[in-house]
Amino acid sequence: MKKALILLGCPESPAQTPLAIYTTYKLTEMGYLVTVACTPSAKKLIEVADPAEHYLKNKMDIETCLDGLEEGLYDLLIGFVHKDAAVSYFVTFYHILNCKSLAVVFHRDPEKLEYFEKTVQENTEAETVSARAYHNPTPIRVRLDRALKKLEEL
Amino acid sequence: MKKALILLGCPESPAQTPLAIYTTYKLTEMGYLVTVACTPSAKKLIEVADPAEHYLKNKMDIETCLDGLEEGLYDLLIGFVHKDAAVSYFVTFYHILNCKSLAVVFHRDPEKLEYFEKTVQENTEAETVSARAYHNPTPIRVRLDRALKKLEEL
Repeated sequence: MKKALILLGCPESPAQTPLAIYTTYKLTEMGYLVTVACTPSAKKLIEVADPAEHYLKNKMDIETCLDGLEEGLYDLLIGFVHKDAAVSYFVTFYHILNCKSLAVVFHRDPEKLEYFEKTVQENTEAETVSARAYHNPTPIRVRLDRALKKLEEL
Repeated sequence: MKKALILLGCPESPAQTPLAIYTTYKLTEMGYLVTVACTPSAKKLIEVADPAEHYLKNKMDIETCLDGLEEGLYDLLIGFVHKDAAVSYFVTFYHILNCKSLAVVFHRDPEKLEYFEKTVQENTEAETVSARAYHNPTPIRVRLDRALKKLEEL
């Protein structure tokens, strides 16, 4: 079974937890076994948002995940990027895993959005999707759907 | 079947969508048929957070809900309160429905928290639970669990 890893940093944006669950759902439908590696606060929000674990069974601490990380463990890396720390995590995981990768960049501030996107593109060859998003998850969800569809066709 | 209505205003806080799904799940377990009345942005976030509708089947626009509202339609009202508009909605729905009611007040700013709590208590006789919450849903989730348990014992 193909394995996907989703990275979640601190959840400043109301859209992050919903988008993480949505992405897990879509990847599971595509046949991936999904693990989410996240910070403690992101983990608590996911647990509250999915109390019966209908969507997400495998959660782990992002630092623990990094400690045991090596090439070949996952076939796909998806990182949610809307803070500096999240950019660093994504770049680090990208270079260790050396697998198909997608950065989902979103922020309410267009300058930060551009900066995060540029930093990811300068430091990796990952696909990136980006959109202004805070309250409204639709712009980033639409781009994410498109990127996942492209992945499926590869 | 007992019917519960959950009110959701604009989702400024990352904790709101996860808490709304959690509350729906708990109330469903308690035997309630749950409807969520929400603003358009809150609705989009819930749809993304629960793409297969495992938790929440009945969603409606908060203004449409208000238009058709009358006493007897619901047995329980739960309002998520972390903005002025949410206080007004809660107080309005409370006085029309005249049923068992709970206000879940949360905010990262302690002064606003106190102000919202006081306003609810001055304008209704609803139960209130309140906690500082932004990233971390645990303090408000623990108080919510306690209030729901009390409801079940009534």
